[in-house]
Amino acid sequence: MKRTIVTALAILTLALTTARAQEKTIAERLGYPRDAKLLIVHGDDLGMAHSVNVASMKAFATGLVNSGSIMVPCPWLSEIAAYARANPQADLGLHLTLTSEWTNLRWGPVAPRDRVSSLIDKDGYFYLTETDAAAHADPKQVEMEIMAQIERARALGIQPTHLDSHMGTLYQNKELFEVFLKVARSQKLPVRVARSWFTRADFLPETLKQDDVYVDRVLDINPGVAPEDWARFYSDELKKLEPGVTEVIIHLAYDDSEMQGATSNHPNWGAAWRQRDLEFFTSEAFRKVLQENQIKLITWRDLGKLIK
Amino acid sequence: MKRTIVTALAILTLALTTARAQEKTIAERLGYPRDAKLLIVHGDDLGMAHSVNVASMKAFATGLVNSGSIMVPCPWLSEIAAYARANPQADLGLHLTLTSEWTNLRWGPVAPRDRVSSLIDKDGYFYLTETDAAAHADPKQVEMEIMAQIERARALGIQPTHLDSHMGTLYQNKELFEVFLKVARSQKLPVRVARSWFTRADFLPETLKQDDVYVDRVLDINPGVAPEDWARFYSDELKKLEPGVTEVIIHLAYDDSEMQGATSNHPNWGAAWRQRDLEFFTSEAFRKVLQENQIKLITWRDLGKLIK
Repeated sequence: MKRTIVTALAILTLALTTARAQEKTIAERLGYPRDAKLLIVHGDDLGMAHSVNVASMKAFATGLVNSGSIMVPCPWLSEIAAYARANPQADLGLHLTLTSEWTNLRWGPVAPRDRVSSLIDKDGYFYLTETDAAAHADPKQVEMEIMAQIERARALGIQPTHLDSHMGTLYQNKELFEVFLKVARSQKLPVRVARSWFTRADFLPETLKQDDVYVDRVLDINPGVAPEDWARFYSDELKKLEPGVTEVIIHLAYDDSEMQGATSNHPNWGAAWRQRDLEFFTSEAFRKVLQENQIKLITWRDLGKLIK
Repeated sequence: MKRTIVTALAILTLALTTARAQEKTIAERLGYPRDAKLLIVHGDDLGMAHSVNVASMKAFATGLVNSGSIMVPCPWLSEIAAYARANPQADLGLHLTLTSEWTNLRWGPVAPRDRVSSLIDKDGYFYLTETDAAAHADPKQVEMEIMAQIERARALGIQPTHLDSHMGTLYQNKELFEVFLKVARSQKLPVRVARSWFTRADFLPETLKQDDVYVDRVLDINPGVAPEDWARFYSDELKKLEPGVTEVIIHLAYDDSEMQGATSNHPNWGAAWRQRDLEFFTSEAFRKVLQENQIKLITWRDLGKLIK
């Protein structure tokens, strides 16, 4: 009897392992071999400032940065919307925005302010931090605001290929993430989620369904990297890139007066940081790393096609 | 009988003329002689862009530009509000804003958008032109919006010394001007009005009362002046300045990437225009013209003290 149970369990384990092995990876669902190294090179924060827009458009022109997302509440939205209309094949998503983190340059909701009062601080702008934003946010008002952002983007001729969340506010808790997913599914758009995040937020695997489309991992630089090590950090990470889909999240701008004014007293993700990102990701060194390591660029548009 | 009437009329005319002569000018009400040449050097559009803020703060530091007004709905409000808090004696008013005239950089109402729907275009921003804004504006909604701008400014620690109207929207018709005056009187703040405008807008003298405080004339440059004639235009106008109170309205910024992006395809009041204003009004040549022509700088704060 005991042996029968053990044998049955062994067969069951084998069957499950086989089923899991047969489950297609995102790379395979995209038509690539399981061991392909696929990369999305993604600029965040489009629309935030003229400096960001000009740097991002320059980077897109090289073909080495091939994706980006737009902050609808920000002052320079119209400029990047004109780019989107003129470049309908550009892989542009929306960087859904519920925070206004710089102290000199601020923005607030697209929805009528009195209908999303849980999203704004005493000065009428979004909260400065994602933790404050999440702590105050009424999920119904979040849904209204992010729908308003999507609607304004579409009205300006932007056809978003994906959605993500500025400063990760929509990943701060399960309730907000559920609103995010609900809106994304209603729009049939993929959202930025990485399988590698599952261990640090239980609600992600609990909330996602088999059909949802997401990347295997996200690569981003951090304040611990010294400015002189910027190129080496990215090159090293790319040389050891694992198979599957990786999104490298970068922040592009010039280290100019506007950007210095916006990010003053805030070197992390500041003006010089963004110019370093711009320099590496438009460089021949980056192009060479991609070639030598057989890394293929893909877009959120490609991922979105997997959504039924 | 005829002679008696003629004599009576002559006496009446003399009495009226004497009364008018005895009516104090604004200069006299300020304690200056009737023939004093008084000048407010006023930078518009503070808060619109970092470039405008930095240029204006630099100009204020010279003492040669001594007044300015702030656009509350604009993205860089917080930066200039910090300046206002740090410099409580600065002569800063509000440049009440109902238009969003640049196509790449836009802004909209401070009041909840659905309560001021007559003020916004299909993209949710203020209209591009003052004529479109005035044609659509519901005066009740204008009152709500400009009160919201004043309240946000005060909440940020700005104590405005005067009010004016970006692109002159609030002077477009009598109804709008009445709203403007009503709000200004409720706040006990002077508004930008020039006696020299009376001939071109009947509703101005009809609406203003004896107690209202306004300047005698406004001086501003126009697109007909060639860039190389900039300094000469201003110098010539100042050399022939008439007695009384003149406000010279200028637009300060740097001819930098941000400002070029904001004003692209729009050389009038564009980036290079604003840098030319900055250069002249912070120059020794301007200081010399003031001295040689006995022109004394006064502020809107001085004028505001005349309001009971």
